[in-house]
Amino acid sequence: MEESLQNLDAFFNPRSVAIIGATKKIDKAGHVIFKNFSTNKLHGVYKGELYPVNPNEDSILGFKCFKTLSDIPDTVDLIVIIVPGKAVPGVMEEAIAKKVKAAIIISAGFKEVGNVELEEEVVAIARKGGIRVLGPNCLGVYYSRTGIDSLFLPETKTLTTGDEVVATPRPMPGSIAMITQSGAFGSAALDYLTGRQMGVSKFVSFGNKCDVNETDIFRYLYEDEETKVVLIYLEDVKDGREFMEIAKKLTLKKPVVIIKSGKGSAGARAAASHTGAIAGSDKIYDAAFSQVGIIRARDMAEFFDAGKALAMQPPAMGTNIGILTDAGGPGVMTVDELEILGLTVNRFNDDTLKKFQDLKDKGLILKIAATSNPVDLTGSVTDDQFVMSADLMFQDPDINGIILLGLHHMPGLREKYIDDTVKVASKYNKPIVMCDIGETEMALYTRSRFDRLSVPAYGSPEEAARAMKALVTYGAYLKRNGTVGCIEEHIEEAKEEEKCAFAAATVQH
Amino acid sequence: MEESLQNLDAFFNPRSVAIIGATKKIDKAGHVIFKNFSTNKLHGVYKGELYPVNPNEDSILGFKCFKTLSDIPDTVDLIVIIVPGKAVPGVMEEAIAKKVKAAIIISAGFKEVGNVELEEEVVAIARKGGIRVLGPNCLGVYYSRTGIDSLFLPETKTLTTGDEVVATPRPMPGSIAMITQSGAFGSAALDYLTGRQMGVSKFVSFGNKCDVNETDIFRYLYEDEETKVVLIYLEDVKDGREFMEIAKKLTLKKPVVIIKSGKGSAGARAAASHTGAIAGSDKIYDAAFSQVGIIRARDMAEFFDAGKALAMQPPAMGTNIGILTDAGGPGVMTVDELEILGLTVNRFNDDTLKKFQDLKDKGLILKIAATSNPVDLTGSVTDDQFVMSADLMFQDPDINGIILLGLHHMPGLREKYIDDTVKVASKYNKPIVMCDIGETEMALYTRSRFDRLSVPAYGSPEEAARAMKALVTYGAYLKRNGTVGCIEEHIEEAKEEEKCAFAAATVQH
Repeated sequence: MEESLQNLDAFFNPRSVAIIGATKKIDKAGHVIFKNFSTNKLHGVYKGELYPVNPNEDSILGFKCFKTLSDIPDTVDLIVIIVPGKAVPGVMEEAIAKKVKAAIIISAGFKEVGNVELEEEVVAIARKGGIRVLGPNCLGVYYSRTGIDSLFLPETKTLTTGDEVVATPRPMPGSIAMITQSGAFGSAALDYLTGRQMGVSKFVSFGNKCDVNETDIFRYLYEDEETKVVLIYLEDVKDGREFMEIAKKLTLKKPVVIIKSGKGSAGARAAASHTGAIAGSDKIYDAAFSQVGIIRARDMAEFFDAGKALAMQPPAMGTNIGILTDAGGPGVMTVDELEILGLTVNRFNDDTLKKFQDLKDKGLILKIAATSNPVDLTGSVTDDQFVMSADLMFQDPDINGIILLGLHHMPGLREKYIDDTVKVASKYNKPIVMCDIGETEMALYTRSRFDRLSVPAYGSPEEAARAMKALVTYGAYLKRNGTVGCIEEHIEEAKEEEKCAFAAATVQH
Repeated sequence: MEESLQNLDAFFNPRSVAIIGATKKIDKAGHVIFKNFSTNKLHGVYKGELYPVNPNEDSILGFKCFKTLSDIPDTVDLIVIIVPGKAVPGVMEEAIAKKVKAAIIISAGFKEVGNVELEEEVVAIARKGGIRVLGPNCLGVYYSRTGIDSLFLPETKTLTTGDEVVATPRPMPGSIAMITQSGAFGSAALDYLTGRQMGVSKFVSFGNKCDVNETDIFRYLYEDEETKVVLIYLEDVKDGREFMEIAKKLTLKKPVVIIKSGKGSAGARAAASHTGAIAGSDKIYDAAFSQVGIIRARDMAEFFDAGKALAMQPPAMGTNIGILTDAGGPGVMTVDELEILGLTVNRFNDDTLKKFQDLKDKGLILKIAATSNPVDLTGSVTDDQFVMSADLMFQDPDINGIILLGLHHMPGLREKYIDDTVKVASKYNKPIVMCDIGETEMALYTRSRFDRLSVPAYGSPEEAARAMKALVTYGAYLKRNGTVGCIEEHIEEAKEEEKCAFAAATVQH
């Protein structure tokens, strides 16, 4: 690992952490953050040393408290700073003496409110000591494997009724890196990802990004084995040229999906007063992202939907999609959306048409089923019909991916087709995404079962179509820029994961 | 009520119903439908007479069974036909003799599979006898107040594990009419609406619409007191001129949101093999809908989101929106989406800016809060700050509606602001929609509480923005075409409902 990455690594794998501004006062950020670390240490998740720093306390939650950072007898890799902005430079000076590698500055009151000089002072000190800084005005890092959790938002909240409820949950370990300039969007994303059972490899909120920014993080994630997909929320891009360079390298190795907000003039004004970002022309961003293979999401739903598809499925190696449905109307809606997105739903070639005709002749699927793409098995669908049809469609060399609309409302459909279809899909190096509409029991069961088997499931036809579009976009980028080996590796990896997920889910079942 | 509407009314308020093709066989449509009616009759929901018709049974579920429709001694208002297609003309001939007013033909095998003549024969017989026909190839009607339920999709399903789960739930009574050409989309919509707790006034699935079509239904819903908003899924429009005429009348009285699928060439091909629809040019539909004030949704999410907003809130009387947030990033995302949708987020006038400065001077809101629109109270938000700020913003004559981003992750925010903000909103004749991001406990609680208080809540900034756009679009249409009285009525109605919802929810709390 190159030197700059080694220091970045201290944010995720520190051997010792000091919390500057730790406190016993329950509602304070300095308490929440220290408690995150102390709980993780007691539970054996965080395995390093932990030092609370506060001149007014002797101990916090059973840990010996130090008056200052300098008082800590041992080395300190990472400091988390929660003291008021004007006290931060002093802490940073001490950090140089302690040979601290990395600092997360949670404190606000810097550039985002006009205090540019204070922020520049902090940066100058950090540079002098070779300390990498995350923030200020940020949430910092959540990394479940080593128990790093600098989020000042407690996992639960107590209502005025006295009820304790989940408020800012931490997601399970997984393969998605979630990177964000906005802390609020970050905490919302953690909540969303947890609820949708999407696992996270690394979470980083860098706020004002006075030092560590998207370019550094991309460099780190390029090497990070745990991360398969990068989701990033940005309001501006620093170091444009470097960013483009590393992005180009990164996207050939793993897909990157972005929300770049502050698009129009009013949005840019709002972004400026938020993280001090200068948003710049939106069209330039569009062109730049596309050039380096970053997939830009048009909204929050598409952001997470695309991330889920790219984390679970191989890229699509062409633009022609097969639709397999038991629901006519939603089938038409899917075709509509795919066409709007520039994909095709071409009529099958004669070979595939003939194979479907054979199934009809043998009475295996209904005579009234439409079988020229979309394949509409109608409300009389059975589990076996779905599985057989999916197999035929995957065999067609002109089909680059399948959208399966398995509306569970059809009386003859049981849950058996879910596992069986996934088994069929795992024989082919082509992506499949699915949709079932509804918000009650059977819909939730169906979608979550597919998700667990690494086939991304969506609640509307258009969401499924957009997820497929992301797989097509990424596939096209790899074809244009990547080597064949690189593409094959993506496909192999995704298929391997689907098989593992299948095995794991089957055991649990 | 004019005569044609009287016969249509027999679909919803029949004094007697005969189920032609009722059976004891548990998996058959004829069993599910008969059981729906018999259960509703036993529970006192369906209050009319009920007659199963099947030549091979003496009784079904305790009801005396008749060999033929003609054998029923009393009058029959409504028949539901589940027998095979070729037997339908015979049933319809009998229906003339029985002076039946309305027939729901569930049976498929007509125009959608090329049997045009059979369908025309049925239509000819119906015309001769003055019988109104819904279908064929449809789900028919669900009307909770009188217990009409011709849906052959059972509410629950038994998995292979032996577990019984909710599959096609029926939504609670409410003010949204859900009309659909696609049965599958209809059943999915029922599932979605139930899960999102959106109440339905009338559900109609008309499939091939050989007789009753969107024009008839619009005419009926124009008079229907229970329906406040119409959601309709169409693949084609019959009787274009009449449709435009009634739509124009209807939209001045209540908002109509449409999904018109079969947009491109492949979509149109898919629609043709689905309900035999000839989709026509999509741009013509766009222009026509806009001319008569029908709001066209770009996808399923927007369809339901717009419906919810229009059912709960008054239309917006201008295009300038105020944003009130505790989350900077999501605030910027909201501004972005509003700008893309052609709405504005203008800087407040001096008067409002001064009022916010006063709040800052008094220490009631943070000095670092952004208060020029968007109002970003930052992560240090409290309940009271939200309520005070909302009140100021509503007072501003240049603000036509408010999007409230209440991300619950902020530590100082409790649930108290929800009821308090709704109380403030109910003083003004302007719409408010809200967003909280997340999929775990506190997010679900927050959104559902707002929903119950008739403030529509959404899970992403862009969804909230699009919902507001629907309120703006409808307001602009009313201003262009309606009378002032008509607009005031909409506003009064919406506000009245919000107050009632508030009272009801408060009692339940």
